[in-house]
Amino acid sequence: MAEILAPWRPILSRALHRNRSLPNARYFQLATINLQGQPSNRTVVFRGFLDDSNQLQIITDSRSEKINHIHHNSASEICWYFPKTREQFRISGNLTIIDENHHNQAQRVTVWQNLSDSAKQQFTWPYPGEVLTEDKQNFFQETPSKNKPISNFIILLFNLKKLDHLELRGNPHQRTLYYLDDSKNWIKQEINP
Amino acid sequence: MAEILAPWRPILSRALHRNRSLPNARYFQLATINLQGQPSNRTVVFRGFLDDSNQLQIITDSRSEKINHIHHNSASEICWYFPKTREQFRISGNLTIIDENHHNQAQRVTVWQNLSDSAKQQFTWPYPGEVLTEDKQNFFQETPSKNKPISNFIILLFNLKKLDHLELRGNPHQRTLYYLDDSKNWIKQEINP
Repeated sequence: MAEILAPWRPILSRALHRNRSLPNARYFQLATINLQGQPSNRTVVFRGFLDDSNQLQIITDSRSEKINHIHHNSASEICWYFPKTREQFRISGNLTIIDENHHNQAQRVTVWQNLSDSAKQQFTWPYPGEVLTEDKQNFFQETPSKNKPISNFIILLFNLKKLDHLELRGNPHQRTLYYLDDSKNWIKQEINP
Repeated sequence: MAEILAPWRPILSRALHRNRSLPNARYFQLATINLQGQPSNRTVVFRGFLDDSNQLQIITDSRSEKINHIHHNSASEICWYFPKTREQFRISGNLTIIDENHHNQAQRVTVWQNLSDSAKQQFTWPYPGEVLTEDKQNFFQETPSKNKPISNFIILLFNLKKLDHLELRGNPHQRTLYYLDDSKNWIKQEINP
């Protein structure tokens, strides 16, 4: 079932459009909590929304540390800064893991098919974060199948609960909070920057 | 006492230099943990290192939410992406708050003096995060004293424990880990990207 388009969607679409000349405008920082209860933060690529939903898609490798974090605590906050328009979106919510055992394999296949060959190949690289593999040949394996996702390929779905939009242009800055109320309706509130 | 220059310092300086044409190359994302144990993530401005130390300086308002987070849990991770050179620094450590009661007021005064008038004035704005103050005049108060920091002006010092440097240029990517061992020596280790 299609969700109702959230009131922040046109605002985010406008930011993406106005910053489209910058490749890094599609990158944002994803914070999770590690098993020691400390914050962890890394840059990931926005891979669009899932179908008609308000869920943001991210891809990752099942061997990456953040998968352990998410299994333990699915809470996350995205910080997305758009340099050209000088605006920031802070997006709070929870992450869902779509791995090879998830029922929605159709979506997993679609996102995989849209990846470049070099992005696909990164999933064949040696275990990330371990001491550098000496044999460089391990980084140059055959590109995996175009239509069948490699087993360690994962989609992360970000389910939003709150979005905090800050516009630095203008004086004073403008800041708008969007959040879901108990009836799952989006509330919009202007707040002090 | 001056710390020994850490081996990651020239690498970070090079990134800052090569990306100096981009104002946002001095912005990074700072993750903390809120009082509900969830990650929180926002963009802040790099304000240089404290004197001869390896501690990164950030400024903030004592009324901002992150101050409560840090009082409760000082652990933090910075994610710093440099668009021009396509490299990322993930920096883990702890934050120290230098407020108006801290013994190092000299440093607090120096950083305050270097702020622009508009940056100084933001500390006079109404309480951040609250429902928007109707009376716009509250956002246009007199610029505070140039030499005496306003009471809610705070420096955050970021004390590093680990730095994870990822270079996306080249195939495969390059990734280097720097961390402090038990004797407080910096260890450098090449790891799989």
